[in-house]
Amino acid sequence: MRLSKMLWVTLREDPTEAEIKSHKLLLRAGYIRRITSGVYAYMPLMWRVLQKISRIVREEMDAAGAQECLLPQIQPAELWQESGRWETYTKAEGIMFSLTDRTNRELGLGPTHEEVITAIARETIRSYRQLPLNLYQLQTKFRDEIRPRFGLMRGREFIMKDAYSFHSSEVSLKETYRAMDQAYRNIFNRCGLKFRAVDADSGAIGGSGSQEFMVLAEAGEDDVLFTEDGKYAANMEKAISLPADLVPSTFTEYQKLLTPNTETIAKLAEVLKCSATQILKNVLYEVTYDSGITVLVLVSIRGDQEVNEVKLQNELVKLAGNYEGKALLALKVPDPESQKVWSSQSLPLGYIPPNLDDSYILDPRYISHDELEKLIPSTSYEYNKSIANHFYDPDKQGYDLVRMISRFEGNIINDSLNKEKTEEFPNRLKAFKDTRSKIKVHPQFLRLVDRTAVELKNFVTGGDEANYHVVGANWGKEFQLPKLIVDVRKAKAGDRSIHDPSQILQTARGIEVGHIFQLGTKYSKAMGATFTNENGEELPLIMGCYGLGVSRLAQAAVEQSHDKDGIIWNVAIAPYHVIISVPNVNDPAQIEVGEKLLRELNQAGIETILDDRDERAGLKFKDADLVGIPYRIVTGRSLAEGKVEVVNRATKEAKNIAIDQVVDTLSAIVFSTSRE
Amino acid sequence: MRLSKMLWVTLREDPTEAEIKSHKLLLRAGYIRRITSGVYAYMPLMWRVLQKISRIVREEMDAAGAQECLLPQIQPAELWQESGRWETYTKAEGIMFSLTDRTNRELGLGPTHEEVITAIARETIRSYRQLPLNLYQLQTKFRDEIRPRFGLMRGREFIMKDAYSFHSSEVSLKETYRAMDQAYRNIFNRCGLKFRAVDADSGAIGGSGSQEFMVLAEAGEDDVLFTEDGKYAANMEKAISLPADLVPSTFTEYQKLLTPNTETIAKLAEVLKCSATQILKNVLYEVTYDSGITVLVLVSIRGDQEVNEVKLQNELVKLAGNYEGKALLALKVPDPESQKVWSSQSLPLGYIPPNLDDSYILDPRYISHDELEKLIPSTSYEYNKSIANHFYDPDKQGYDLVRMISRFEGNIINDSLNKEKTEEFPNRLKAFKDTRSKIKVHPQFLRLVDRTAVELKNFVTGGDEANYHVVGANWGKEFQLPKLIVDVRKAKAGDRSIHDPSQILQTARGIEVGHIFQLGTKYSKAMGATFTNENGEELPLIMGCYGLGVSRLAQAAVEQSHDKDGIIWNVAIAPYHVIISVPNVNDPAQIEVGEKLLRELNQAGIETILDDRDERAGLKFKDADLVGIPYRIVTGRSLAEGKVEVVNRATKEAKNIAIDQVVDTLSAIVFSTSRE
Repeated sequence: MRLSKMLWVTLREDPTEAEIKSHKLLLRAGYIRRITSGVYAYMPLMWRVLQKISRIVREEMDAAGAQECLLPQIQPAELWQESGRWETYTKAEGIMFSLTDRTNRELGLGPTHEEVITAIARETIRSYRQLPLNLYQLQTKFRDEIRPRFGLMRGREFIMKDAYSFHSSEVSLKETYRAMDQAYRNIFNRCGLKFRAVDADSGAIGGSGSQEFMVLAEAGEDDVLFTEDGKYAANMEKAISLPADLVPSTFTEYQKLLTPNTETIAKLAEVLKCSATQILKNVLYEVTYDSGITVLVLVSIRGDQEVNEVKLQNELVKLAGNYEGKALLALKVPDPESQKVWSSQSLPLGYIPPNLDDSYILDPRYISHDELEKLIPSTSYEYNKSIANHFYDPDKQGYDLVRMISRFEGNIINDSLNKEKTEEFPNRLKAFKDTRSKIKVHPQFLRLVDRTAVELKNFVTGGDEANYHVVGANWGKEFQLPKLIVDVRKAKAGDRSIHDPSQILQTARGIEVGHIFQLGTKYSKAMGATFTNENGEELPLIMGCYGLGVSRLAQAAVEQSHDKDGIIWNVAIAPYHVIISVPNVNDPAQIEVGEKLLRELNQAGIETILDDRDERAGLKFKDADLVGIPYRIVTGRSLAEGKVEVVNRATKEAKNIAIDQVVDTLSAIVFSTSRE
Repeated sequence: MRLSKMLWVTLREDPTEAEIKSHKLLLRAGYIRRITSGVYAYMPLMWRVLQKISRIVREEMDAAGAQECLLPQIQPAELWQESGRWETYTKAEGIMFSLTDRTNRELGLGPTHEEVITAIARETIRSYRQLPLNLYQLQTKFRDEIRPRFGLMRGREFIMKDAYSFHSSEVSLKETYRAMDQAYRNIFNRCGLKFRAVDADSGAIGGSGSQEFMVLAEAGEDDVLFTEDGKYAANMEKAISLPADLVPSTFTEYQKLLTPNTETIAKLAEVLKCSATQILKNVLYEVTYDSGITVLVLVSIRGDQEVNEVKLQNELVKLAGNYEGKALLALKVPDPESQKVWSSQSLPLGYIPPNLDDSYILDPRYISHDELEKLIPSTSYEYNKSIANHFYDPDKQGYDLVRMISRFEGNIINDSLNKEKTEEFPNRLKAFKDTRSKIKVHPQFLRLVDRTAVELKNFVTGGDEANYHVVGANWGKEFQLPKLIVDVRKAKAGDRSIHDPSQILQTARGIEVGHIFQLGTKYSKAMGATFTNENGEELPLIMGCYGLGVSRLAQAAVEQSHDKDGIIWNVAIAPYHVIISVPNVNDPAQIEVGEKLLRELNQAGIETILDDRDERAGLKFKDADLVGIPYRIVTGRSLAEGKVEVVNRATKEAKNIAIDQVVDTLSAIVFSTSRE
């Protein structure tokens, strides 16, 4: 192929839309073009890279006994309702594009295919003799990212390889899981990537165990924790570790102390001259389930530890049934706005005890004192306040909204002369009640205690009052230990590893390019996909699933391998192996040698392009470096000696090679490299 | 690959969901599975067929100098608004799935990619030196079909090859168009299809010329007209021909005649003992433009001819600007329901003259006599009718709705004793007015005359009154010739061909598998995609586009090639070349030979599977025939003589071949066949 016949368009400047190097380079070198937010066209050069990666993926998947198919991108809502994920995917995470067709049926655009493949398995798999089975596809997937970024890293449309396996036993699942692990390692190695396999959270996909493959790069969005000995690595979201040793408490007596300005653990430890490990921290979260019920969650954790919200979310999903739900729609630390909606009085923020009273959660039929005060018009304060006082209920810590409103409404009719006094306030009350009635708040705190906090003795914790803490407190004495003991602490760099406490966790950033899951029976049970085993028993299929981001891998490769001049492709995934740059196209000798080598190299299976544009040599070399073709041949001065210059893109090393030796020399390099 | 490791599931019975043979066979043989209406999963066998077709397509496209890329499936509404197709595609045809993302932006799912590629060309093509350029992709496309049917023939998700070319001149466009025509012929020939290239309507894609490739099959949805000499072939929608010769009129004098029960041309010709060619037929259509304006269209055409609605639609789109529109939302023959909405009185259906008076179109502020009568409650008929009569306007042929309603509303207040008389009727009138005010009807008929009708003399036509016709009429005398002379007649089998009137048009049914277009500058002009020519002038890019239905082609191949036992694949696109059926898997000798041949054939590049299932031989043979693998090897009785039986699926011919000759024999057959 000649450059003059290709759509070869490079940019001199970094495009402003791009934040990270790989994104900038792919745009500048003309590999991709943005069509809309998070959506890119793969131009011919990019498509060649993607096809090469796809081919490696196919070869390794096929070698591992998987069979390729292609499942639909359009998926009917019914299937996702069967698995219980429709709500989570279209409302909670909201990550699935959904639409209505002309017959008013709801459809989703596949971000993943567990439901579709399980529906197929349900109809086609009858017997253990058909198992195991591993089906995969290479396909464009969709995710309605709120904030697409970094080009192909976090797009709304991207290419994935996804595989789904079916088994009659856990042993068989683990065998395929291991085979997939090995296939993934082969794929990343063949693509020339530096990567790390790490334990991972299974998130919305579910299942009992999963592993991510991280391409290591500073621009990665994931934090990885690992140990030097190579025996432990996990995504920060999933990582476990030993917490720092507990420093025994110095407090021996239960006391409430004035501790002004100690809203943070650090300040408190300083003021009390104690270790943060002696402090019990109580963190408040607000959770909304798909049933519409909001629950206030109080997590008690050791003062030196942080809550891992992914782990917390997993615990809360398990409890969804208690709140008429199946999934979580939102999890957040309540801000002042949302506190106002459900709290009966100001919360002792920074001084919250584990037994924060449920009366802080206002009965939605009541309005708190503070809120009421804000609603009364100042011009009629005395008049309205004196009436409202009749409706205060000290048990509820609030004013009865319904009775109060009907009383004030009575006044409008009976006291039409005092219109300005009697109209404004009841209207404001009604508006408040309307807002309030839209949210259903569970009337008790959901109390969870992290394992780190269970062993605390004589601990320090919030005094339930601004500027006060209690010290020397104990579970079972001043405070009741919450029934739900969970592991929701965040492992962090510097922690000791569980497998070997002498190993200290270190941190790195990575780009997730693969994720393999042992799903178990989550989908087969939900959707009734069963098989009959050797004994004639009908059992749910045991499943695994295996994702690999093809387009993301391509960009990750660039993120890991580039220099100031441009991309440095590994030979195995480079769009072409060789570019022949003809410095002067008006010199017939140069063009002739260029054409000859173009023909001979391509015939030898070395994918070669010829830069035959009538441009300056310097610009051609710059373009070749930017686009990152592994080898450049220059038909320049050395032609006089019957030689051409061959430049290695990665090392910039240049050699003069006799024209008739070029094919052999490059064959040796290219074919050995691409087989590595 | 062994069948015991594959998901090999065949059905004994034809699935009820399938109507045509190819659809039934693909389902029964386990190639595809329906996921939802018009949406199928391609199972591993099908995926191999699709990959083979794709490979042939890629080879031919690459050989013709096109370059592969991949454009996004998600397309922003803005691009389609620029080209003016958003409304047509999401509302008129409504064929594009559209959705809103989480940031409330409108997106479409690509049914085609002119907009996206033109947007890319606009940013990347500057100079004639970059031209010509031909980019293509193989991709899943989406169409929100109202009535998906026939499996992969008319699905909502399907695989297409689409290519787009850019040129600096019409000459260059035609060169690429011809190259694509040849590439398509090569592709269909290599796939072993019987096909015909035909002239086609360019429809919503647009442009100056287009050609479809039809795979000939009775189950096809398209009608093709062609001549025996092979020099003319066209889709019925687009076809042209010579109409039958005009029989000179026998009427010499203009007269209005009583012609009862002559609503059809046939009856009329019989009663008047005249040729249908002497009759002027006036066909009424109702059109809605995207501006919301409804136009009544009166097409005058020779009595022996039919209106081709595709041609009519193309004419009406050209006139959209006259009605504040860009596109057509609907075109239909008005039914009694819709006539009721806009007509001031009963239409003389079957007796319509070309000058049907515009007063038949009711001013929307008025209600016709007939409609009014239906609205007056019988219990208060006299009372209400006498009031209504005051509001009749003979010029408008109706009653003034607004004034009448306000008068009746006055009565409700003033005459509360006669409640039952005064309330019901004005309410009905208001409801009628509300319905009426929603449609905007253009107050004049749009009159078109087909070429065939222009030359008529002393013709017969409708008498503007039931049971009456006029005879001996002439343009310019009794009737004014409409200004808009168009060609909207339908060519049909039996017509004489234009290129050679001795050739008579014949008809065949076909499945459209390819469509190539000379687009011209439709998209580049609308979207401002220009280049600079040799003289430094900035001109719009000249474009072509070239579609090929990959998944449809696969099914068309089955529709064209099957027998009572199943599919007969051409070797070039068969999922595997050879199936080794081991009649008795418990016979070690049979299995051993089967395994040996499996290994050797696959090593030789002959794609082979082994039926190693513990099933009856008869069932295995049936399965092999159903799935349609071109060659079956049976390790049966002939093993005793060191031979296996090789059966040709298409011819059922069986030969015993020495085991050590099998690879050579099949290589010779398979590789010669697939290179044809």
